[in-house]
Amino acid sequence: MSSETLLNNVLLRRFFVVPAFEIYGGVSGLYDLGPSGVGLCNNLISLWRRHFIEEDELLEVSCTNLVPEKVLVSSGHVARFADVMVKDTTNGECFRADKLIERHLEKLLLNEKLPADERVRLTYILNSADGSTPEQIKQLILDLGVLSPSGNPLSDPFYFNLMFQTSIGPASNMKVYLRPETAQGIFMNFKRGLEYAKRLPFGMAQVGSAFRNEISPRNGLIRVREFEQCEIEYFTDGTPNGLKHPRFSSVAKLCVELLSAEDQLAGKERGRNMLLSEALSTGLLRHETMGYFLGRIYLFLKEIGLDTRRLRFRQHLPQQLAHYASDCWDCDCLLSCGWTEIVGLADRSAYDLKVHSEASGADLTAFVHYPEPRQVEYDTCSLVKRACASIFKKDTVRISEAIAGLQGDRLAELKLSVSKNEPYVLEFDDCSFEILPSYVEFSSGSKTVHGESIIPHVIEPSFGIGRILYSLLEHTFHIREEDSQRTIFRFVPQVAGIKVFVLPLMSNDQLLPVAERFCTLLRRRNVSTRIDSSASLIGRRYARADEIGTPFCVTVDYETLENDSVTIRERDTMMQVRVPGNQTAHILADLCEGRYSWEAIRRTYLQVVSDKTETEQ
Amino acid sequence: MSSETLLNNVLLRRFFVVPAFEIYGGVSGLYDLGPSGVGLCNNLISLWRRHFIEEDELLEVSCTNLVPEKVLVSSGHVARFADVMVKDTTNGECFRADKLIERHLEKLLLNEKLPADERVRLTYILNSADGSTPEQIKQLILDLGVLSPSGNPLSDPFYFNLMFQTSIGPASNMKVYLRPETAQGIFMNFKRGLEYAKRLPFGMAQVGSAFRNEISPRNGLIRVREFEQCEIEYFTDGTPNGLKHPRFSSVAKLCVELLSAEDQLAGKERGRNMLLSEALSTGLLRHETMGYFLGRIYLFLKEIGLDTRRLRFRQHLPQQLAHYASDCWDCDCLLSCGWTEIVGLADRSAYDLKVHSEASGADLTAFVHYPEPRQVEYDTCSLVKRACASIFKKDTVRISEAIAGLQGDRLAELKLSVSKNEPYVLEFDDCSFEILPSYVEFSSGSKTVHGESIIPHVIEPSFGIGRILYSLLEHTFHIREEDSQRTIFRFVPQVAGIKVFVLPLMSNDQLLPVAERFCTLLRRRNVSTRIDSSASLIGRRYARADEIGTPFCVTVDYETLENDSVTIRERDTMMQVRVPGNQTAHILADLCEGRYSWEAIRRTYLQVVSDKTETEQ
Repeated sequence: MSSETLLNNVLLRRFFVVPAFEIYGGVSGLYDLGPSGVGLCNNLISLWRRHFIEEDELLEVSCTNLVPEKVLVSSGHVARFADVMVKDTTNGECFRADKLIERHLEKLLLNEKLPADERVRLTYILNSADGSTPEQIKQLILDLGVLSPSGNPLSDPFYFNLMFQTSIGPASNMKVYLRPETAQGIFMNFKRGLEYAKRLPFGMAQVGSAFRNEISPRNGLIRVREFEQCEIEYFTDGTPNGLKHPRFSSVAKLCVELLSAEDQLAGKERGRNMLLSEALSTGLLRHETMGYFLGRIYLFLKEIGLDTRRLRFRQHLPQQLAHYASDCWDCDCLLSCGWTEIVGLADRSAYDLKVHSEASGADLTAFVHYPEPRQVEYDTCSLVKRACASIFKKDTVRISEAIAGLQGDRLAELKLSVSKNEPYVLEFDDCSFEILPSYVEFSSGSKTVHGESIIPHVIEPSFGIGRILYSLLEHTFHIREEDSQRTIFRFVPQVAGIKVFVLPLMSNDQLLPVAERFCTLLRRRNVSTRIDSSASLIGRRYARADEIGTPFCVTVDYETLENDSVTIRERDTMMQVRVPGNQTAHILADLCEGRYSWEAIRRTYLQVVSDKTETEQ
Repeated sequence: MSSETLLNNVLLRRFFVVPAFEIYGGVSGLYDLGPSGVGLCNNLISLWRRHFIEEDELLEVSCTNLVPEKVLVSSGHVARFADVMVKDTTNGECFRADKLIERHLEKLLLNEKLPADERVRLTYILNSADGSTPEQIKQLILDLGVLSPSGNPLSDPFYFNLMFQTSIGPASNMKVYLRPETAQGIFMNFKRGLEYAKRLPFGMAQVGSAFRNEISPRNGLIRVREFEQCEIEYFTDGTPNGLKHPRFSSVAKLCVELLSAEDQLAGKERGRNMLLSEALSTGLLRHETMGYFLGRIYLFLKEIGLDTRRLRFRQHLPQQLAHYASDCWDCDCLLSCGWTEIVGLADRSAYDLKVHSEASGADLTAFVHYPEPRQVEYDTCSLVKRACASIFKKDTVRISEAIAGLQGDRLAELKLSVSKNEPYVLEFDDCSFEILPSYVEFSSGSKTVHGESIIPHVIEPSFGIGRILYSLLEHTFHIREEDSQRTIFRFVPQVAGIKVFVLPLMSNDQLLPVAERFCTLLRRRNVSTRIDSSASLIGRRYARADEIGTPFCVTVDYETLENDSVTIRERDTMMQVRVPGNQTAHILADLCEGRYSWEAIRRTYLQVVSDKTETEQ
């Protein structure tokens, strides 16, 4: 059995992840997590909160899944959050067009006799198909002769919006969508966030569900219709000074693999290993804030136990950028299905706050102090209101605002009219007004300005928790050398769902209450613990614990009754030490929180000769 | 300003909870949690997991929000998950009918001159309006003369389904709903749960969103359209023995307020304080499993800091029971808007698994061993297949199954035909077959049976996290006696979002790095910490920490630079002690996890005379 098949068997059998609504035949793109998966997922999210929210003092919000249409019209999702779809003209099956083309190209590239220049051309198309317009897709289908998987001709490509739509209220008259990303909820709360944080820069974050009506869900947990996101929106002023990050130095010396847009177009799959400080100085990364979060993402993925040799940061090609992004780096993870995006890091510039401010009329600016106060020349005009109110009546306010807003050429024109003692015509879309010289006053001079109101610039690290979870399962899955049927997950203790199994050596009335007492002590220290008092041999029970990645087992035996000592057995080494009962909970809490290493414990306590039952099934 | 207004001000201003999509004018029934609210909510959920999932070794699952229609047809939600709605016939406004009637009755009952018998009659109607059919509601509207809030006549009442509907897939051809409760996802996974747990009883749990298109959302976080639930489905065999609970004794001596259905119909609002053991022996609680979970719910709500004098458990009246429930107790919390359900405890009997098993064809039974093996008489008939296969051909299997299934009178009829050597007519809906005596064989005798396959019985504790959160905010909100503008939340440390503020006494370059070092030490011990290095007076900063319920402040001052000591200040007492710097993180972690009390700390360390700045604003 291949390692991949074995992994998928374990995931189902040990209730990590299962198809949703299985008893009704399932729904493609929907999965449920069972207890083994939920434990992992909850721990990933806790560690994420600790790593990002606590360390960077981010403001976490929790917003609704239901989002009114007008919000998503403003954000651009109603018009542009779509994939290009094609139909099989014979059986009506639907496909995501770029994926069909990619599959077609991957097949062509398998041909080893392909001329080198043709290989470069096809690789270029492969790397840039994602993000093409229906017109470009149509041309590619024609040029490459792409057919449906059943071998039938394809329809013309068209956009398919990926949002789920419903309506709210007893009269069902308000159109709403399920959020396609958690980010929009954060933008809705920016103003309150700014009041709370008091000044730029500051970050807000959200952990929650997002929904995408994928055309062709596939690859298990990778392309699904409902998923958990962790997103950060880091608000800063967009000046070179504002995009510096005070903590960049803490990541500057990290070496990560960066695959630039340029290298991809040259057909490269792997990037260059580079210090973040170097990536910044060469201009590959545009500013420190991108560099800081890229480094923090790398450190997080390393901390949870991903194999960093199978991670790369890939820059988006210009046509792949989402409608809101000005630069974007994906963190891709190498999986059995190929390189897969698990985290995105987008520079959204001021796009989001700008569109929401325009559409809602809310003031979404922040006041930014200049490093030094500036002397600014001013030259303005104002309406003499007391004279004009009776003339312009209800239009006085708009006229007054328009006059005050005149600048440059238009202000010069007004000045000219006044100097000639001629009326000036102020034009609006719907009407115009004659402004006589006596209606206005000019003033000019120089004043001290301490700063200005700007719409903040947003840097967005966005994590797909389901994909990270699946990557972790693949990267930590191992088959014991001694026995191809014995599999383990080498989760770091901080991530493992159940951290300790307590096993009474024999199932009898003497050992069970003692085992239960140890469970209680461990739980008091927040160590997730289960008892396995089944009648199976101890080796069989160790194997079951290994199979779900539980790092430690505590065995209660007859010696425990005599001298209150227990054995602790570690998953990866299968080594055991004997420790005093009253130190057990303390030692395990420290091991699980990463305060002690197993090596340190092994050096301190008496090692027990591994029981021969260990290898028995 | 009233305490309620003051509370609502603080909730908005300190970013606990805000209307969703506020900048676009908001959507009624949708709220977002800000950082102060999210911290609390996450801690409530962690404590819930620890209290229920860890202690009872429940299997946590995480299922999708999208649920296919057929699942909710089976569960009864498509037909029956509805409220009775009426419309104002003049302006078309929609109302939940029972709420209009209740409001009408509450006004009538304010009349102190109401005759006693009329008061009893109206109270009875008030307590039983919820759950009435449209016909009953129509009669009540007529009898009581209920009008719309604008004083207009009302339409005939009709059912309005509360589920949000959408569709899935590129052809949008699969109808799905947003889940109205998390429970159904658990039932979908029952079979895998049983395989994992291996035997009854066992419990499964889920934490997640649920959605209800409420007709008239109101009371802030109380009646909303999207909310967070924590639900447990505890599967047990429904026999008196199966409904016993091994850990009931751990809650038997708890005294809780129980308001029976009978007492409510007699117009009572408060229940009787009763030991759970007594409630069980008098039959008010039907079985130990209900009693156990009722006790555990009470303990959880007490642990998180609700005022237990403002909690009651209220039994549902027969007409209020949901379509799936055979008995139900709500835990109600007394709030400014009256008694409000925050937890439900339903005995769903075997309803759910039965309907899903019938609709999906999946075997959702569990094998239950009898306490003692039983001798069972059997008397059966079987088809002689070798003789019949050539006669009945493809119908052989269904005929064989029908014959084997004959019992009682029908088996007796067959026996009679055989004894008379006459053919027996076996009827199906679509056809019938003649069974000749030679086609069948009888056997009877006695055999040992060890158990049977049953559809498990379900007990469901269901928690509304938003409502519990809001109850906690009301119950812990206090105004300082010294100053009516100074408010605090007296959260227990385990629940508080930010547990420690670190404050450099003065904002200068010497104290800030020391304060940051203490933050790092606290974070290493998982104590959620923020720094407040603003230039405000220390008393003002204490007041700001109090306002969001942060239990402890660590102040770094010039003495810290001299002898590495800091002060810890406690929120409720406003007392301060001076502790050695190297013990600070350890002491605070213990205080926040509830391992030490503030009293113990005060006795151990030097008390600092409260700074006079404390009372300055």
